[in-house]
Amino acid sequence: MAQNVYDNADFFGGYGRLDRSVHGLAGAPEWPLLRSMLPDIHGMRVVDLGCGYGWFCRWAAENGTGEVLGLDISEKMLERARADTGNVAITYRRTDLEALSLPPAACDLVYSSLAFHYVEDAGQLYRTIHDALVPGGRLVFSTEHPVFMASGRPGWMTTDDGDRTWPVDHYSAEGRRTTHWLGADVVKYHRTMATTINLLIGAGFRILRVEEFAPSAEQIAADPRLAEEVDRPMFLMVAAGREEA
Amino acid sequence: MAQNVYDNADFFGGYGRLDRSVHGLAGAPEWPLLRSMLPDIHGMRVVDLGCGYGWFCRWAAENGTGEVLGLDISEKMLERARADTGNVAITYRRTDLEALSLPPAACDLVYSSLAFHYVEDAGQLYRTIHDALVPGGRLVFSTEHPVFMASGRPGWMTTDDGDRTWPVDHYSAEGRRTTHWLGADVVKYHRTMATTINLLIGAGFRILRVEEFAPSAEQIAADPRLAEEVDRPMFLMVAAGREEA
Repeated sequence: MAQNVYDNADFFGGYGRLDRSVHGLAGAPEWPLLRSMLPDIHGMRVVDLGCGYGWFCRWAAENGTGEVLGLDISEKMLERARADTGNVAITYRRTDLEALSLPPAACDLVYSSLAFHYVEDAGQLYRTIHDALVPGGRLVFSTEHPVFMASGRPGWMTTDDGDRTWPVDHYSAEGRRTTHWLGADVVKYHRTMATTINLLIGAGFRILRVEEFAPSAEQIAADPRLAEEVDRPMFLMVAAGREEA
Repeated sequence: MAQNVYDNADFFGGYGRLDRSVHGLAGAPEWPLLRSMLPDIHGMRVVDLGCGYGWFCRWAAENGTGEVLGLDISEKMLERARADTGNVAITYRRTDLEALSLPPAACDLVYSSLAFHYVEDAGQLYRTIHDALVPGGRLVFSTEHPVFMASGRPGWMTTDDGDRTWPVDHYSAEGRRTTHWLGADVVKYHRTMATTINLLIGAGFRILRVEEFAPSAEQIAADPRLAEEVDRPMFLMVAAGREEA
């Protein structure tokens, strides 16, 4: 089972104060790029893996999808999500992504934002998603970037020239990483870029587009804290399609 | 025009003393992985972009390909390549990859080892390769990894814990990088992982497999200098296929 740190009260409190928790999609700087990777969602049956507060589910339902299914491991997150919506097109359900099961070939889009790095067996996850999609269906997701996750000591360093730099080590040593975030020990799973892409292809997906978030000049002007994200790729985003039968 | 540092006498001398220059493919630790990404080359018409001393061209011709065309910008490299082979299946020709032109749909495999990072306009290069391949033909190449190339100060650092780590900064700032290598200023072009993949897809390729070189335990035992390559991805390798018509 994946770690459920979100139901830790201190962590949940800290998480609730993040920009992306307070402001939703508008508080997530990578959202415009991730949104640009989505297909036309009109009428689509959508599954959101790791839906959290349900911001994406509500956005999708309000923008013309058919049914939306939001899945998350955190009961606290789902309580907030259910309290925040009256949209009958959305269903929320507690699910551990390590043991995901979905009806075969019954959805058009699987979406996930920053949840897959909590999953140890990504190959199994991708195969389950593949089988849940109709032929031609899409998987669009973001995850923490392997460059962000690899190091045994992930924190900014300063070069001899006084410049900011991000450490990369143990890149090829895949597996468990424990970091301290929002007052809790958070367990994540590092996979190389190659592994992510090859597992998707092996599961039957075609790679359609890959993105690595970097802030625009406008985003940095609006929020100078984002400037450091020019230096390292923090989020990896992939759009993949289930091959036609 | 791409820089032709290989015809700089001092650089050429230094390059000639590298393991991969002295021992050929057997001296390149990433070769077994790159070889595993090749299709069955029997009878194929092959083009090698940046063929250097011609090690791959000879290997290909000795392993059953049809015609092999080796292209390189360095006249000194081509002289050595021509002197080292008597195989009539191989043709060597001086070519700047920035101005590559190949007959349409007339080859089955385009191979390139550690040359594409010298090319500024990768999109144009990929489109030219795509059009040179028959439908279903393959492009298999290695290039310096963006994690290896990004930093303004690419050299190992030491963390507060005394561990080796590799710096990443300016990752999203693509373009020219000048590094000092083998006594010369070498000009390379940094592109993100996302850019490489998206340019290939945009040129009409399907991504078949991606690899990031890391040495095996056996390789490290045989050459302890390779141990550091566990910590950072130095080489990116891609196998891509021209879509069937």
